[in-house]
Amino acid sequence: MRVPAYAASAAGQPLRPTTIERRAVGPNDVLIDITHAGICHSDIHTVRGEWGPQPFPVVPGHEIIGVVAEVGADVTRHRTGDRVGVGCMVNSCRECVHCRNGNEQYCLKGAAFTYAATDVDGTTTQGGYATHVVVDADFVLAVPENLDPAAAAPLLCAGITTYAPLRRWGAGPGRKVAVVGLGGLGHMAVKLAHAMGAEVTVLSQSLKKREDALRLGADHYHATSDPDTFDELAGRFDLMINTVSADLDINAYLGLLTVDGALVNVGVPPGDMTVAPSLLGARRTLTGSMIGGIALTQEMLAFCAEHGIVSDVEVIAADRINDAYERVLASDVRYRFVIDTSTIG
Amino acid sequence: MRVPAYAASAAGQPLRPTTIERRAVGPNDVLIDITHAGICHSDIHTVRGEWGPQPFPVVPGHEIIGVVAEVGADVTRHRTGDRVGVGCMVNSCRECVHCRNGNEQYCLKGAAFTYAATDVDGTTTQGGYATHVVVDADFVLAVPENLDPAAAAPLLCAGITTYAPLRRWGAGPGRKVAVVGLGGLGHMAVKLAHAMGAEVTVLSQSLKKREDALRLGADHYHATSDPDTFDELAGRFDLMINTVSADLDINAYLGLLTVDGALVNVGVPPGDMTVAPSLLGARRTLTGSMIGGIALTQEMLAFCAEHGIVSDVEVIAADRINDAYERVLASDVRYRFVIDTSTIG
Repeated sequence: MRVPAYAASAAGQPLRPTTIERRAVGPNDVLIDITHAGICHSDIHTVRGEWGPQPFPVVPGHEIIGVVAEVGADVTRHRTGDRVGVGCMVNSCRECVHCRNGNEQYCLKGAAFTYAATDVDGTTTQGGYATHVVVDADFVLAVPENLDPAAAAPLLCAGITTYAPLRRWGAGPGRKVAVVGLGGLGHMAVKLAHAMGAEVTVLSQSLKKREDALRLGADHYHATSDPDTFDELAGRFDLMINTVSADLDINAYLGLLTVDGALVNVGVPPGDMTVAPSLLGARRTLTGSMIGGIALTQEMLAFCAEHGIVSDVEVIAADRINDAYERVLASDVRYRFVIDTSTIG
Repeated sequence: MRVPAYAASAAGQPLRPTTIERRAVGPNDVLIDITHAGICHSDIHTVRGEWGPQPFPVVPGHEIIGVVAEVGADVTRHRTGDRVGVGCMVNSCRECVHCRNGNEQYCLKGAAFTYAATDVDGTTTQGGYATHVVVDADFVLAVPENLDPAAAAPLLCAGITTYAPLRRWGAGPGRKVAVVGLGGLGHMAVKLAHAMGAEVTVLSQSLKKREDALRLGADHYHATSDPDTFDELAGRFDLMINTVSADLDINAYLGLLTVDGALVNVGVPPGDMTVAPSLLGARRTLTGSMIGGIALTQEMLAFCAEHGIVSDVEVIAADRINDAYERVLASDVRYRFVIDTSTIG
């Protein structure tokens, strides 16, 4: 089946309309009529070749919302007409220790990521900037009906990426959580941590997003460009979610953790981090987290439905994708672009 | 009260017999007749000035075993004649969040360490290379009678330093624990992790301590000088206790952790660590741990009594302290020197 899509033909090329092949619906597959696809910074890194060579043409998009159009003979968990989502993964081995523990993203054979990757059948995956996608039913999430579909799209990546470490490191009542950086990931971290009952502080470069942060649920806001911030907040936080992908002075941030506190990188800074061992002596944890497993993603969607949490989005037509990329790079979006995929093809 | 002791008069000077002042026994104090004092590498760092300027003369020693000779009027938890121990701390504020949580070593006002530190009364603390010490009863540990007193001395530092992270990061049945370095700390980590039911692997530079390691309770042993070790063990361990104070290629070791694994530095490497953020992405934790609180130290002593665990020691007379220091620096001890303090004065 050939379907309309937007693809980059080579590294650094703009995304242009094209058609791509989707496989026939197998016994455990779901055919999804895509309605929305979020734009993640990873999409830009990938199509610009910043994360190494890619199997061009590449159709990005791993924050996919749609409606089930058809299911394979063996599919029981999804039905035609269901609102569903697909995140960063579309397959994994199901057998290794990490898959069995619900950590499919760390599959020992390599999870099949949603685009520019190799699926278990040997084909190259193509993402959600398209009208349709065929995905193994086990990697299709049920999306609660009370969530706005456009605004729910970013939950599939930005949502789970921040939900997972907040849960893993115990955000909740009585816990002080700092969110470093207020972009697509950061604004979800603030909403989720607040809903979990934590006391939330945003650490952003300047004061310009202060009002937004408080509206999103932050209790406190500090500018990291103010050196007093690091003195004032020393030893304060139980958990810091670092959403900034640029290199930071990681020791300055580690100093803001209390005993047993954890600093979790959810972006991957491009360079090595230089860490003073003495800062870790108070059982401070430096760690990272990459998206989240399928069961946890489903849990996150239920949590969002319960608390009425979606992303703050700007919905665009597909012919604005390239402009949107420029605006993402300029941090000129509050807080996520979502493509109305009815405008594709 | 003046008591015989061994002190360094200045940085880098050998330890020589002297006498020092001990305070009068206050209402909450315990006077201890010291029988044994372990030699910890920290003692050497301190008297050689490698950890900065010190309030010389310095009497080192924070692995102290003795018998209660006298108690203050308000002391109820210790009695004359009891076998007791003192570790790395002799006081703290008792009021801050960390003291209240049993983490006195991270006291916000600064714990009073056992030597070369300032006690809450403003006096300079002097350690266990002496015949007697006066310590606040709350920082005196009860030592189970079935533990050999000489061999129990190192439990007060080497024991708790390794017990604390093993407990904190869940060493136990079904868990794979690696101990990096087989010295004073490492040999305790092996004994303790084995007794907790973990599968224990020793990673040591060469194969020369292999038989020792297996005798101490290790299940596996690998030489880190063999580059195949790092390929073979990739993604293997739930927990690594790094007892090596020298700078290591920390990324190589992080690569040996499985998802959610933790690498805990219990020594403090002298230089900064260079960490590749991508290695942390699988929720791998890089952290550190410094000794342990008083309640946990008491728990550790009970655990050791239950499992018959003590240190492997070489007992020496006080006039061999300076030779012992040289042998510690040459890694020529299996695995801890303990001073018979009846030979002092």
